[in-house]
Amino acid sequence: MTALSDAVRVVLVSPRNPLNIGAAARAMSNFGFKQLRVVNAYDVAYHEAKSAVNAAAVLASSEQFKSISEAVADCSLVIGTTAIGHRELKHTIRRLEQASPVIRDHAGSIALLFGSEKFGLSNEDLSHCHWLLRIPTRDEHVSMNLGQAVAICLYELIRNEEAASRTPKEVEPASAADLERFTTQLLDVLRESGYVNPKTADTTEHKIRRMVLRLGLPAKDAQVWLGIWRQILWRLRGL
Amino acid sequence: MTALSDAVRVVLVSPRNPLNIGAAARAMSNFGFKQLRVVNAYDVAYHEAKSAVNAAAVLASSEQFKSISEAVADCSLVIGTTAIGHRELKHTIRRLEQASPVIRDHAGSIALLFGSEKFGLSNEDLSHCHWLLRIPTRDEHVSMNLGQAVAICLYELIRNEEAASRTPKEVEPASAADLERFTTQLLDVLRESGYVNPKTADTTEHKIRRMVLRLGLPAKDAQVWLGIWRQILWRLRGL
Repeated sequence: MTALSDAVRVVLVSPRNPLNIGAAARAMSNFGFKQLRVVNAYDVAYHEAKSAVNAAAVLASSEQFKSISEAVADCSLVIGTTAIGHRELKHTIRRLEQASPVIRDHAGSIALLFGSEKFGLSNEDLSHCHWLLRIPTRDEHVSMNLGQAVAICLYELIRNEEAASRTPKEVEPASAADLERFTTQLLDVLRESGYVNPKTADTTEHKIRRMVLRLGLPAKDAQVWLGIWRQILWRLRGL
Repeated sequence: MTALSDAVRVVLVSPRNPLNIGAAARAMSNFGFKQLRVVNAYDVAYHEAKSAVNAAAVLASSEQFKSISEAVADCSLVIGTTAIGHRELKHTIRRLEQASPVIRDHAGSIALLFGSEKFGLSNEDLSHCHWLLRIPTRDEHVSMNLGQAVAICLYELIRNEEAASRTPKEVEPASAADLERFTTQLLDVLRESGYVNPKTADTTEHKIRRMVLRLGLPAKDAQVWLGIWRQILWRLRGL
């Protein structure tokens, strides 16, 4: 069992402002979280943040990734943060204080995704998330500053001293990397079988991705399922 | 009974960075708080923050004060936020989540004081506070970014939907303005009576100020007490 602060990865997706990257790192340091991951960062911003005076150690040891899949590969719970804008969201949404115990009870590693300052997380980004977390801002002004949103989420996780030492559930869920393989193979099967309409292929892919996340696939079953898809695919292609 | 969001005044003491002033205002807007007060602000910073694109309405309607006494005059509960550094603090300190219900139960207006980015609140600033509030950062990195500290405190206050509609206690405590008059007159009495040693006058003043705050003077008794001090002073001066 690892401490919550070791299990959580803060993932900034497409951040544009070095001050926000720095502020996120500072809040992580304030609350004892260490793993900062940055996806598709604007290079200048990332390097400016890293080279700032007083840059937290968190920032120095942060890692850069090209895609969300890579950034969350070792996580078995991926949570998107959202202000809920105009998009019709197909995910379960939890208010932050209700999300917090669910995060603490999770047995594996957890990725907390934060979108860019301007656009938040895209539908494609969200398709990697098991569920979404909402900071309870008022309807007239939902959009939060990135550094403040990170600070509030981490504060909520360490808010209660007892809660910060977590007692996760027994069954370890499959990692995002396993789920990615599962999804890729399932999509191959669906394409080969003619299930996917090329005109709506993108939508279908997102839908399937969310459906797989909802399965709650246990880690120990992942290999068996991959074997099943391989077998089906072999048959379809051999027809 | 006023809503919590109307009862709370966010008071920034000696802020130096316009981005932090803006961030504080934005968090207030996110969580529905309206009254921003700025004491002894660096003028350029304050005006730069006010004129920023996207400056929140909160910032436009914010008020400037020369001293903490003036800024908190209408408040009957004044709370200082602190990272607890090396100073030996003489105040009661509450962790944020424990402070939150006390704030909600308070019948009158509440001032939440935040110190400057570099130095926090001075001992003189703290002498205006009934008690202190601490955000539970880790010991190795206690000092938070100002905008993030404001955001976290306000989040905690609105965190729980039921709690946000508060049910304050019955007795309305005296306002800071009444307490200031009480303290000023008491200090006059102490000086006239020879209680105050001129060499340690500053320390004595802070000590007395904190002691008066701890009295929990009810609003309805304030006038009676002022009469008592006036009478004593008249006698002392007439001797």
